[in-house]
Amino acid sequence: MKIRVFVTGGTFDKEYNELNGTLYFKDTHLAEMLRLGRCRLDVEVRTLMMIDSLDMTEADRMIIADNCRAAAEDRILVTHGTDTMVETAAFLAGRVSGKTVVLTGAMIPYKFGSSDGLFNLGSSLAFVQILPPGIYVSMNGKCFAWDRVKKDKRIGEFVEL
Amino acid sequence: MKIRVFVTGGTFDKEYNELNGTLYFKDTHLAEMLRLGRCRLDVEVRTLMMIDSLDMTEADRMIIADNCRAAAEDRILVTHGTDTMVETAAFLAGRVSGKTVVLTGAMIPYKFGSSDGLFNLGSSLAFVQILPPGIYVSMNGKCFAWDRVKKDKRIGEFVEL
Amino acid sequence: MKIRVFVTGGTFDKEYNELNGTLYFKDTHLAEMLRLGRCRLDVEVRTLMMIDSLDMTEADRMIIADNCRAAAEDRILVTHGTDTMVETAAFLAGRVSGKTVVLTGAMIPYKFGSSDGLFNLGSSLAFVQILPPGIYVSMNGKCFAWDRVKKDKRIGEFVEL
Amino acid sequence: MKIRVFVTGGTFDKEYNELNGTLYFKDTHLAEMLRLGRCRLDVEVRTLMMIDSLDMTEADRMIIADNCRAAAEDRILVTHGTDTMVETAAFLAGRVSGKTVVLTGAMIPYKFGSSDGLFNLGSSLAFVQILPPGIYVSMNGKCFAWDRVKKDKRIGEFVEL
Repeated sequence: MKIRVFVTGGTFDKEYNELNGTLYFKDTHLAEMLRLGRCRLDVEVRTLMMIDSLDMTEADRMIIADNCRAAAEDRILVTHGTDTMVETAAFLAGRVSGKTVVLTGAMIPYKFGSSDGLFNLGSSLAFVQILPPGIYVSMNGKCFAWDRVKKDKRIGEFVEL
Repeated sequence: MKIRVFVTGGTFDKEYNELNGTLYFKDTHLAEMLRLGRCRLDVEVRTLMMIDSLDMTEADRMIIADNCRAAAEDRILVTHGTDTMVETAAFLAGRVSGKTVVLTGAMIPYKFGSSDGLFNLGSSLAFVQILPPGIYVSMNGKCFAWDRVKKDKRIGEFVEL
Repeated sequence: MKIRVFVTGGTFDKEYNELNGTLYFKDTHLAEMLRLGRCRLDVEVRTLMMIDSLDMTEADRMIIADNCRAAAEDRILVTHGTDTMVETAAFLAGRVSGKTVVLTGAMIPYKFGSSDGLFNLGSSLAFVQILPPGIYVSMNGKCFAWDRVKKDKRIGEFVEL
Repeated sequence: MKIRVFVTGGTFDKEYNELNGTLYFKDTHLAEMLRLGRCRLDVEVRTLMMIDSLDMTEADRMIIADNCRAAAEDRILVTHGTDTMVETAAFLAGRVSGKTVVLTGAMIPYKFGSSDGLFNLGSSLAFVQILPPGIYVSMNGKCFAWDRVKKDKRIGEFVEL
């Protein structure tokens, strides 16, 4: 079984710019994280964009949907900022069918040492292997159907509707 | 859904003794890892033993089997050293039925910074939520039925039989 | 020999707020860093403020100067943001005499895993034990007299004038 | 000012072999640590050996002494296992003169995430720049003349005689 990973940015991949003290995007850390996790799945990673999900436009979401549809694989993981992950999941729900698409992300950048990203990556790669076709959000060890979840921004947790 | 975690030791929980330069067991890091992963599952952790799996006896395995049978939960994760994980899985297969039991571990101690433990913990908690009753080994992002896997000690990887 | 440490904030102590994705100050990590470094010096830490050095006012600098003068110890380390570290050093130079005062900081927050803070803390505590009275800036393994240094913001390095 | 670093191994550079669960030596992490610390000193690193200091013979110590004598630099840092660091310092004291030689090490391997190595490296590079010619041991933020120190193995700390 081959799994496709589409990278879109989000907290997952944020880095610290030591020259001006701001957070920014450079390259994705997905390959490094898979190596660290000793992952032996047949995974192919492609970066679609590197943006904060608050800056994601409908055009950006269309790029994700198009890539999900065009992919040879029918098991797809999308790394995504948490702020609008649920919106993107809903967008994909009307446009991608017959495939298992799992969106995941992180609350803490991977490079900042105490990341939930490695944990979420592990659980999401498990969910995407097993769940039937559909659009899902995988966070905090849980997996939600796209229309049964919201992010509670006050506590930084994804909860069931 | 409530998930029970039984801790038995293994590389997962090894620490470095700075007074004599050896590796040893103190307490499990499971609670810390779940916190780091921002895990929001209903998980209850109980330590059964803290040993190297090369030192695990049949009496030890019977303790694990007894606890799996006696647990109120029917979804159970067992953290375990990798060297004899497959043996313990086979032992449980003849003694625990009607429950989903997933064994997992790590090649690198969690405390040593570059651990695969957090990744394996994430994927194992996903597998244990979804898979039907049976005994499984979850390593390297993959999940194997207990009788379809062996550890290739030469490359440190679990492979399908 | 007793060493006094005054904490003023700076990149050293910045943390990541996972609820809104911004950097902020909570508590200082000095005690944790000294423990991690197995430091056995007789050090007493006091937090004077927790601010970005770009926000430091003359009133703030006067607080630092007053505390340096009032301290029972004559060997003092000041943790400080790098952007205006040299300005504060110059401010202290006219107001604190007969004591060895070393200012240091970090380019990367300690909590972000790849910090230069632990290295700078080590070298600064060495310099402060040995150097004669005066005001110094200790960064990048080097120690400069307060009037012989500037920060090259383009490369993020402290260089001799 | 140019500083020479001679690497001899020790806990500093120990790694975890995930195939058999033992600790071993591969390459030194000195260059990585200097980069992490944003060190801008003119440092040249040379590996003399990669051994546990309990295995160090008189022939090994002679190699260190010969290299200290032959070095063009008169400020030299030697990374060394802590168990026999004081013995090597005493050995060098009779054989190297007119140079500032600082021995340092770590209680926790650098690769194990919570190392005192970065802290010790920082303080040792400071001491070696400033101290007059002589043989010193730098650990725990302190610097001792070679004949005024012993390691208290019970508590893992270097103490003054």
